[in-house]
Amino acid sequence: MNLPVSAEHRSRVHAERIQALQAAMLARKVDAWVVLSADPHLSEYLPEHWQGRQWLSGFDGSAGTLVVTAGFAGLWTDSRYWEQADHDLAGTGIQTMRAGAADVPGPAQWLAATLPRGARVGLDGQVLAVQAQRQWLAAFADQGIRLACDLDLLDGIWPERPGLPRGTVYEHLPPFACRSRAANLAALRAAMAERKADWHWISSLDDIAWLFNLRGNDVSYNPVFLAHALIGKDSARLFVAPGKIDAGLADILRQDGVGIEPYDGAAGALASLGEKETLLFDPARSTVGVLAAAAYVGKVEALNPSQLFKSRKNAAEADHVRRSMEQDGAALCEFFAWFEAAQGAQRITELTIDEKITEARSRRPNFVTPSFGTIAAFNANGAMPHYHATEASHAVIEGDGLLLIDSGGQYLGGTTDITRVVPVGQASTAQKRDYTAVLKGMIALSLAVFPRGTLSPLLDTIARMPIWQTGADYGHGTGHGVGYFLNVHEGPQSIAYRANVNADMAMQPGMITSNEPGLYRPGSWGIRIENLVLAVPAAETEFGEFLKFETLTLCPIDTRCIEPGLLAEAERAWLNDYHGEVRRRLLPLVDGPAREWLLERTAQI
Amino acid sequence: MNLPVSAEHRSRVHAERIQALQAAMLARKVDAWVVLSADPHLSEYLPEHWQGRQWLSGFDGSAGTLVVTAGFAGLWTDSRYWEQADHDLAGTGIQTMRAGAADVPGPAQWLAATLPRGARVGLDGQVLAVQAQRQWLAAFADQGIRLACDLDLLDGIWPERPGLPRGTVYEHLPPFACRSRAANLAALRAAMAERKADWHWISSLDDIAWLFNLRGNDVSYNPVFLAHALIGKDSARLFVAPGKIDAGLADILRQDGVGIEPYDGAAGALASLGEKETLLFDPARSTVGVLAAAAYVGKVEALNPSQLFKSRKNAAEADHVRRSMEQDGAALCEFFAWFEAAQGAQRITELTIDEKITEARSRRPNFVTPSFGTIAAFNANGAMPHYHATEASHAVIEGDGLLLIDSGGQYLGGTTDITRVVPVGQASTAQKRDYTAVLKGMIALSLAVFPRGTLSPLLDTIARMPIWQTGADYGHGTGHGVGYFLNVHEGPQSIAYRANVNADMAMQPGMITSNEPGLYRPGSWGIRIENLVLAVPAAETEFGEFLKFETLTLCPIDTRCIEPGLLAEAERAWLNDYHGEVRRRLLPLVDGPAREWLLERTAQI
Repeated sequence: MNLPVSAEHRSRVHAERIQALQAAMLARKVDAWVVLSADPHLSEYLPEHWQGRQWLSGFDGSAGTLVVTAGFAGLWTDSRYWEQADHDLAGTGIQTMRAGAADVPGPAQWLAATLPRGARVGLDGQVLAVQAQRQWLAAFADQGIRLACDLDLLDGIWPERPGLPRGTVYEHLPPFACRSRAANLAALRAAMAERKADWHWISSLDDIAWLFNLRGNDVSYNPVFLAHALIGKDSARLFVAPGKIDAGLADILRQDGVGIEPYDGAAGALASLGEKETLLFDPARSTVGVLAAAAYVGKVEALNPSQLFKSRKNAAEADHVRRSMEQDGAALCEFFAWFEAAQGAQRITELTIDEKITEARSRRPNFVTPSFGTIAAFNANGAMPHYHATEASHAVIEGDGLLLIDSGGQYLGGTTDITRVVPVGQASTAQKRDYTAVLKGMIALSLAVFPRGTLSPLLDTIARMPIWQTGADYGHGTGHGVGYFLNVHEGPQSIAYRANVNADMAMQPGMITSNEPGLYRPGSWGIRIENLVLAVPAAETEFGEFLKFETLTLCPIDTRCIEPGLLAEAERAWLNDYHGEVRRRLLPLVDGPAREWLLERTAQI
Repeated sequence: MNLPVSAEHRSRVHAERIQALQAAMLARKVDAWVVLSADPHLSEYLPEHWQGRQWLSGFDGSAGTLVVTAGFAGLWTDSRYWEQADHDLAGTGIQTMRAGAADVPGPAQWLAATLPRGARVGLDGQVLAVQAQRQWLAAFADQGIRLACDLDLLDGIWPERPGLPRGTVYEHLPPFACRSRAANLAALRAAMAERKADWHWISSLDDIAWLFNLRGNDVSYNPVFLAHALIGKDSARLFVAPGKIDAGLADILRQDGVGIEPYDGAAGALASLGEKETLLFDPARSTVGVLAAAAYVGKVEALNPSQLFKSRKNAAEADHVRRSMEQDGAALCEFFAWFEAAQGAQRITELTIDEKITEARSRRPNFVTPSFGTIAAFNANGAMPHYHATEASHAVIEGDGLLLIDSGGQYLGGTTDITRVVPVGQASTAQKRDYTAVLKGMIALSLAVFPRGTLSPLLDTIARMPIWQTGADYGHGTGHGVGYFLNVHEGPQSIAYRANVNADMAMQPGMITSNEPGLYRPGSWGIRIENLVLAVPAAETEFGEFLKFETLTLCPIDTRCIEPGLLAEAERAWLNDYHGEVRRRLLPLVDGPAREWLLERTAQI
């Protein structure tokens, strides 16, 4: 088949970039070059400067690892992106490597099996987690393959490489900021002392934003800014590019004992730490590149203590989140009222949904930005859990079927994330059966009570059981942590039964977690129902402390897709209680058609 | 307080034994001596020869570690035994160390903190698992403490030390043996080939009994015999003491390529393996002592493959177990009919229960022995999950309350393990609430459907949720594997949320597992309801294979303790279905009062 001219041109461009990389590899005596989807902060969303994999290959899915040798170029990506990669890579000479398929080794294993003994693999240490490096080294050890992490071949071949983002940094202020910078620093220093650490290194952007009550806009959706931090017993050094923090803010920070230094001064600061001192760092959240500078200091490894601190929202934060949820729910009432009225009357596509839902949120007080790219996916598109409609490819909402909408907002007083599925035209019996199974799973987790400290992955079976009982399953986790006006995905908890369990994943009061079971019929439809829930005390008995979940998200769960005979009495009661609460709390915030819609969709069943 | 003379004498005897050990330590330049509760086969039940900890200390609980230094003797045991240890150790000078309490370090940690740098700790390597040795070494590494595993100080100070058990070995024969010895060996050799192993070492007695279709009676309750085995590609060497296998059986084994060698020839056989060969062994099921002989051979570590093979009962075995369960259930009908008639008419103690229940089982075809020591525990005694009535201390069954009976039988066609709780006099509302919560948990797991290969610990939350919802919990696992006319506790699966998860614990079709949630109110009562369940295919869909549980145990679950309003419709339906099945299958096997009792106790609710 002939590719259209533009695609042909595009594929030639990428083939040439790979050749340029191969020439640079030859010059630097590197037998293989690996490009990760990562940045020096190991973030979920990458500034363009670190989108080298996309620039080289043309594949712009969110996850992928590019491996280039003298005679081969391959892009490893998981099943979500296999089709897209085949399409994007056509004509470039780069092979799609179906990561996760039974007969496809991982990139490290592939290299170990392919390269000769003693070969040299290059990988930019600036974007390689210390923990990940250990896995690469372990895979290479038997073959005597060397790993070079001190090169960045892209700089030389990427003349138009974008610079670093230059967004300005601002304070997250009271009343929304509910903890003082000084208190956060004191808590962190207490945790350092417990681990006998003199210094603590932080590269993860949400930890830094949380610690200093600062926010920024250097990446999409997450209100963070590029920085590193080095915390001592009496000092706090924030490494951030000039111009991002203005003089006034710098003064405020100085009063809390926080000094501003250049972003590229981080390595020098680490190099100056003495051998009688001890540095606490998180091997999953620090890169080889920057840690290499900490050559002399003693090291102790642990989860960044701020991960646990910020996962546990305090009472004031929880209350702001409740208020934000009311505004978010009211926005959704307006959106859904518009959507139901507009169906049949105008052409609505998946892209229209995104626009309208963001508009509705934007009218709400203290809204900042969406908290991630809206997923509006009709019928078969909904069966791809990470589907995103684009200008080039999106569905028109018409005929019969299910529309899945997963969206969220950043508010000064919290971060939201909600998924609802609504019927378009007539939902089929099979669709209703699936929808009801997912709803039963969501309700089962909503009703869970468990000992404080239960490892979060263990709770996953509670949500999955009703779906497993229908002979179905879903490939994603059931619950991720959610930040407070911060990242919509945060740790340490993870309600995902396939997760590697560790003690940091214990459920603690104050954690906000999503509750989002799903069921996907490839080629047909997808269902996911998602609320955010807050872990709160349930009881303290002779057996210890127990936690339960308070549902934070306020928005009707469409009852037209329910097969009522499949709901147990307790499940029906939960749903009716929930809709009573939704109606009570949203009614004061909506009027006109949104009010009518709310009343109709919260009717008891 | 003056101890009674006999106790005083007893405590003096043990104090003298500790002194003898301390003298031997001095002579052999050992700073601390550790006595584990273990034997060379790492069995649950120890032959007397390896009950050195009991002989030294006088404490005869099933779990404990004795640590002796020049100036100290302490016995570490878990909370089940704290009271008993305090009692048994009184006057011996040996301290009870409350293992698991917050401020009590483990024995290795205590030694590391107490002994001087460079000290030498002795521990009989003959009874130390390779895996456990690594933990001791890790605990000692920082302090430079050395571990000597090549001494047995007990032999020199224990003149009357019992010899090894001399029970004879017999064949497990068809129709009850449903796999041929040759097929077992072939399956094992295939697993060895997969792991590129030339040899496979087995010390675990249930693996050996299973592999060769042999049984014995060297320990209580488990029909096993003392042996080691070394399996090669074309050879199978069984190391067993002379006289245990008669000439006829030796001939039969020889025909299957199995050679008999002396029990103490095992080390020599390992020593003769060459350095170009590879030995597969299980570090949790092989001791340092015997493995030390395998000095030259290459090693590969994994779970004994037979652990997985024998955990998956085949169709013929499952069918024999169903028949054994019918006999076991019929025996229980006879027992319970007697028990209800005898109440008030004669004096019944916890010991009477044990007697009568074993008598009832003994009348059934193919019964061999109890599968463990019967637990009959009335009221507060039931709150101790591992309580055992003794001649010296047991309760009379009278007044009001709950009687917990946990018992089981070894039949040629399967191993049973069942717990029931029955009311004596009047059960209180609080007792009924607890009983119903436990029953709900048991039913929830009975109704579970899950993907084949789900890690068994993850299923535990299913059973616990109804109990957690009442603010209660229980300290033991919910499900252990059960052998086929073999050990009542076997792996690799473990439905226990606190277990260290590994991939070998995946649920597979054919596994028999207990389903035994509980709830214990210390000082008041204890509840546990236990059935054995078989993992069977539930469905095969586009999402893969799913498993469910077939309940194997057949015996009424007392409905007089149920608070009916707390049961959901689906739970009531499960119970009524179960009682219908119990009645249908047991009725042909009982008559007279047992038949009347069965009809009454399986009435629908």
